[in-house]
Amino acid sequence: MDDLLIINAMLLPLTSAAAAIIHPGFVRIKGDRILQLGAMVRLDAGVAARRTLDAAGMVVMPGLINGHTHAPMTLFRGLADDLPLMTWLQEHIFPAEARWVTPAMVYWCAKLAAAEMLRAGTTCVADGYFHEEAVAAAFLDAGLRAVAAQGIIDFPAPGVADPADNVDAAARFIENWRKDTLIRPAAFCHSPYTCSPATLQQAKAMTRRLGTKLFIHLAETREEADQCQARFGLSPVRHLDRLGVLDSDTVCVHCVWLDNGDLDILAARGAAVITCPRSNMKLAVGTAPLTEMLSRNIPVGLGTDSCASNNALDLFNEMGTAARLHKVHSLTPTTLPARQVLQLATRGGAQALGLEAEIGSLTPGKKADLLLLDCQTPELTPFHHQDLLVYAASGHNVRNTIINGRLVMENRTILSFDLEETMHRVRELADRLNR
Amino acid sequence: MDDLLIINAMLLPLTSAAAAIIHPGFVRIKGDRILQLGAMVRLDAGVAARRTLDAAGMVVMPGLINGHTHAPMTLFRGLADDLPLMTWLQEHIFPAEARWVTPAMVYWCAKLAAAEMLRAGTTCVADGYFHEEAVAAAFLDAGLRAVAAQGIIDFPAPGVADPADNVDAAARFIENWRKDTLIRPAAFCHSPYTCSPATLQQAKAMTRRLGTKLFIHLAETREEADQCQARFGLSPVRHLDRLGVLDSDTVCVHCVWLDNGDLDILAARGAAVITCPRSNMKLAVGTAPLTEMLSRNIPVGLGTDSCASNNALDLFNEMGTAARLHKVHSLTPTTLPARQVLQLATRGGAQALGLEAEIGSLTPGKKADLLLLDCQTPELTPFHHQDLLVYAASGHNVRNTIINGRLVMENRTILSFDLEETMHRVRELADRLNR
Repeated sequence: MDDLLIINAMLLPLTSAAAAIIHPGFVRIKGDRILQLGAMVRLDAGVAARRTLDAAGMVVMPGLINGHTHAPMTLFRGLADDLPLMTWLQEHIFPAEARWVTPAMVYWCAKLAAAEMLRAGTTCVADGYFHEEAVAAAFLDAGLRAVAAQGIIDFPAPGVADPADNVDAAARFIENWRKDTLIRPAAFCHSPYTCSPATLQQAKAMTRRLGTKLFIHLAETREEADQCQARFGLSPVRHLDRLGVLDSDTVCVHCVWLDNGDLDILAARGAAVITCPRSNMKLAVGTAPLTEMLSRNIPVGLGTDSCASNNALDLFNEMGTAARLHKVHSLTPTTLPARQVLQLATRGGAQALGLEAEIGSLTPGKKADLLLLDCQTPELTPFHHQDLLVYAASGHNVRNTIINGRLVMENRTILSFDLEETMHRVRELADRLNR
Repeated sequence: MDDLLIINAMLLPLTSAAAAIIHPGFVRIKGDRILQLGAMVRLDAGVAARRTLDAAGMVVMPGLINGHTHAPMTLFRGLADDLPLMTWLQEHIFPAEARWVTPAMVYWCAKLAAAEMLRAGTTCVADGYFHEEAVAAAFLDAGLRAVAAQGIIDFPAPGVADPADNVDAAARFIENWRKDTLIRPAAFCHSPYTCSPATLQQAKAMTRRLGTKLFIHLAETREEADQCQARFGLSPVRHLDRLGVLDSDTVCVHCVWLDNGDLDILAARGAAVITCPRSNMKLAVGTAPLTEMLSRNIPVGLGTDSCASNNALDLFNEMGTAARLHKVHSLTPTTLPARQVLQLATRGGAQALGLEAEIGSLTPGKKADLLLLDCQTPELTPFHHQDLLVYAASGHNVRNTIINGRLVMENRTILSFDLEETMHRVRELADRLNR
């Protein structure tokens, strides 16, 4: 007996950029895995399932993978916009974080982020923050797959008063969560300008020892690149490379200001990149050399960044923005076609996070992480082609989200936890902040 | 007795960029007009209304004004993406138009566009196409306010077999629709490269005589600007100016490739501009000098362009894209702040279309065109500031749309016509096209 059977779907397996829609198609799910999928005519008449979902008029595709966020920052969503970067950070975000970040705030605000992502068809997210154990707990309670990374910074941080303890604190977090099947623990060095060479090397040694990913914000702004050059005589990428920090378990976030040499180094080391176009645009930091990364086969995923700089967590919007931004930036309409963008948000993210054996496409044997998206709406009518998912769809079009074989959202209602309670808790926190 | 009373709203009148939210607030509507608005404490206890809407947890703001689309092109939504501009136009869009554009196609596909816009809180749209009488009929049936402009081009066009008749055909259309209160007729010269100097001058003389707007696509691509220079020795703006076509009733769409002299001419003539950032990005034509337009007090509105190049008609997405694009283009995060973008999509559009006395803000005496947007959703929680409408909201968050005092959408259901029938008709047309 199957656990879940999806029928009559417009099936988009995304096993490659060329993979076409199978219509009408089915997906069989048993436990946390995809058992079989294909055209309806191939569905064995004897197949029985505890639950059958009729996906007529819906696209069924792999859940989207958000390669970068700081989930608890939902509390600071739209708190201060349209400001110079340093004013925004130093006068608004950092003081708000210093005052308001507690384990309870982290739990509830991360859970709100989880709700937003589940409702937009995101089935896996890579997060980095402090009190990351509370983020991990919120995602676990929400049923959201995640790579949860404890922050490392050479300043007193929420939950890590003494910076000398920052790598050990991350190591303890990783040890505590190593056995979980839904949450993969990791570490997140904030950046080359807030982590000393010694911290970076210790963090890399620790994550190597524990077999986890090391994330880092890298080459986000021109100022950062200039400062790194002035301080170390090297670009941010070369600085990390000289420290031995770049390898296939390093995930570099942003990578806007890279030269060709930097790109070659990332490719040679097998390091992955997460690009966050909406955040990069809103903060006006620049446009990442994405096509240059892809032509070097650097694993690249797509991320929203946090609600403080986006200000939302909808990867469908992120896909549409990526496709448009790189076209106008290159003044070439064939740059970053929609099917390549769909790959970034699914298989690309899985590859960047080291999860490509488990998620990122609809493939028998992989985890059953998928979304059902309603195409019977005006903005998706007619549905000539799957590119419309990039150029016209939004997370709001997602009707059902399935993670690890579990239906976590059905008809836009979150089943895994009480959304109203979560919104209420975050509003209380926001009211206190605004008083 | 009032016709409609909205209570408990987060009221955003947008009478100026500085206007703050009034919360909780009320709006009184009588007939097609706003009678009064203000804080709930000012609502007279004796006020009675035939219908009361409780807008608790909702933003109530002016309906958005879409300054540019070709509504019937919903049929071609996503038909061909990611192609070089000329391949896209000449091998896909033009042949599809030549084959499939009929009055019935125009009616049903424009009605689908109307549905999409109503559901995204758009209450007024400026459209340009052929068989525009069918567009006007569709908008009228949908209850959508519009400036509907009959296309003028020096080639045989749908409904205008003989180009020598193109200006007269537009004149007949305008005469037929002059008396309507919801639909304002106008003319749309396709471009300086598809309309001869004589056609442009005749069209301008005709629209002057009839007291209507003349629209034109202008300086969209670098190729257009270069060709105009080669052919006439002038930039597109200077070419139109020498022909006497630019005045305060000329609406120039796109205006991506302008120099400072062009901008000064537009400002001196009082001509208006509609900017379409998502279309400009997707077609990779460039980034319009928007801040330079605004600093010269050129009236500027925001447009989606058609579904063939966007591929959707959601002005909330257009606002977010505009705010982000101009920041990253200028590498300055203070460029085009959210409150300026909200003005572009409301008062700016009204001013560009010559409707600022009637619509564009919540003001007693103006037409009752407004939207109610639900803020009780994860992606809009917490709601620290109205800037979130630009950076996190989507048309999907709109619950109710009111045009001319009439509730045309309630709880996301279109009341003014049968949406299912319309989608069915468009799907039939798409099926025929795909066979």
